[in-house]
Amino acid sequence: MQTLRRCGLALALAGAASLVSAADWQTLPEQAPAPADNPTTPAKVELGKMLYMDPRFSSTGTVSCNTCHNVMLGGDDNRPAAMGVHGQMGGRSAPTVWNSAFSSVQFWDGRAPSLEEQAKGPVANPVEMGMEDVEVAMNRVRQIPGYKAYFDKAFGPDSMSVDNAAKAVAAYERTLITPNSAYDRYVNGDKKAMTEQQVRGMNTFAATGCTACHSGAAFNGPTMPAGSGFFMKFPTFSDSEYVGKYGLMKDLGRFDVTKKDADKHLFKVPTLRNVALTAPYFHNGAVRTLDEAVKVMASTQLNKELNAEDTADIVAFLSALTGEFPAQTLPQLPPTEGWAFEYSAQK
Amino acid sequence: MQTLRRCGLALALAGAASLVSAADWQTLPEQAPAPADNPTTPAKVELGKMLYMDPRFSSTGTVSCNTCHNVMLGGDDNRPAAMGVHGQMGGRSAPTVWNSAFSSVQFWDGRAPSLEEQAKGPVANPVEMGMEDVEVAMNRVRQIPGYKAYFDKAFGPDSMSVDNAAKAVAAYERTLITPNSAYDRYVNGDKKAMTEQQVRGMNTFAATGCTACHSGAAFNGPTMPAGSGFFMKFPTFSDSEYVGKYGLMKDLGRFDVTKKDADKHLFKVPTLRNVALTAPYFHNGAVRTLDEAVKVMASTQLNKELNAEDTADIVAFLSALTGEFPAQTLPQLPPTEGWAFEYSAQK
Repeated sequence: MQTLRRCGLALALAGAASLVSAADWQTLPEQAPAPADNPTTPAKVELGKMLYMDPRFSSTGTVSCNTCHNVMLGGDDNRPAAMGVHGQMGGRSAPTVWNSAFSSVQFWDGRAPSLEEQAKGPVANPVEMGMEDVEVAMNRVRQIPGYKAYFDKAFGPDSMSVDNAAKAVAAYERTLITPNSAYDRYVNGDKKAMTEQQVRGMNTFAATGCTACHSGAAFNGPTMPAGSGFFMKFPTFSDSEYVGKYGLMKDLGRFDVTKKDADKHLFKVPTLRNVALTAPYFHNGAVRTLDEAVKVMASTQLNKELNAEDTADIVAFLSALTGEFPAQTLPQLPPTEGWAFEYSAQK
Repeated sequence: MQTLRRCGLALALAGAASLVSAADWQTLPEQAPAPADNPTTPAKVELGKMLYMDPRFSSTGTVSCNTCHNVMLGGDDNRPAAMGVHGQMGGRSAPTVWNSAFSSVQFWDGRAPSLEEQAKGPVANPVEMGMEDVEVAMNRVRQIPGYKAYFDKAFGPDSMSVDNAAKAVAAYERTLITPNSAYDRYVNGDKKAMTEQQVRGMNTFAATGCTACHSGAAFNGPTMPAGSGFFMKFPTFSDSEYVGKYGLMKDLGRFDVTKKDADKHLFKVPTLRNVALTAPYFHNGAVRTLDEAVKVMASTQLNKELNAEDTADIVAFLSALTGEFPAQTLPQLPPTEGWAFEYSAQK
């Protein structure tokens, strides 16, 4: 506790605003909360993983959820913007699916109040999976005979609906948790789990004021009721040199959803769990290194210029947030039988 | 053995030409042979699986080996022709990767004498993974810092070469074996493993003459020295009504590789293992159902018109060739660090 108290003290001395005490270092729960109408069950998780991995529900038959939110990587695609069907580029960088269950809203602009609603979005997005609408995609699921038994098992008879498919995918995503990082082990009492530099970085992270937004178990803000969202203006200090350099004023963020002036440039505070694996950074993927991303954040959000040592220490600390990835066994997908889908192809 | 003897008798009565005795029903080995210069090791298999699953070595960063040779499905993509980068279509249907280790040559036209050589092909094919050449792809592997340790472990220091990457992928593919199908269990003495219809279909399969080509453990012909290949002319009977219907004279097959007239329309005899999962059928993927594929084969290769009952029996037997798929745990891939690749995108 001594180290934690020191952090709190450092933060108090730094005078940074904070929604929670910086000393409130939380470990990642091993289970994610689920909505009352979609309790997590093994049958839903099994079906959800199949749907998540299956590329046949995109217009070209080549793009699955896992294409952009790749569980073999840090839950994203390591690229500035995601690539959907026909080589088309998405407008924002794909957020990580790992630990997304600990976010009270989904998408950078928070437009989905749940993982269930999020799951329906990319399917019909013309530059992502490119289906006409989710019902058309669901018809493909229905046309693969082998899927019925999995829906029956997860949801009972006559249950092959878009809502149930989305529930299954969400149930699978709620299992994508990366506990037991060096940070978690440190907070749980193993004082050797983090290096000296990482401990120093942890204190600097708090003292600099990063915990004002990046608090809580997933470092994405305080626990909020499902659907509410924790948003911050990015950039807050728009005269930062980085704003022009990285085009940070181009995206209006949550305003695109609500059309309220107050929501201009508001973005969901993203988790920092596994952030060392998810370059490039920010909603536009414009920043290639974590080192630079830390400096950008300090400047645009806290109006601070970090020196090289403090930056390196914070980066070292953030690397301690890389958790253990539960092994993902690939599902054996039921085959398309007797015919092939009319996939969209290059003309 | 009684059933097996009956099969041999039936074949003799049918008078069909056969390279092996129809009674020579073989089970699938649980291990695949490996070349002397690439013995299979766990470290190679681990690295090979990573490279096989990693989409970052295609021009768009979206196409991996697994995209078209999908181990979640029957080892292919359930489509007439594969789709590579930018929605481009390949000229032939992707063959299954499952049990490909039991083929003495690779590709429909047998142009690769080994899995090692095959692995290098799609990377630089403009309509598949679309890289300038395999060295350019290999440079991407080299630029992902986390890969070095896996090459070191598999091949020793300074081993990040195209040849070693191909060896690793081939080593992984040699583990993709689907033993213990109903057929294998039946041949091993479990007379309840196949249904009566499947046993009848097995006899009809042999009596019709299918085993002339589809013999051996993988039903892709006799065991041949690595690199030699077992090819058959398809169609053999070019006046079959199916030839025009399914465009079977369009592809010159092995002739494209050798430019010898005798090789016109020669194709590698494909495995029938898991064939119930890999619709649509043939090198051009023109035939959508296994039922139709069986009739096409009988007509174009054996000049026989199968009745509905015999066809159904053979299809039932072929379904008994669906084996057990060893669980595939997804690798955790090393992230791109500090930068992103310059992926090709739609203009």
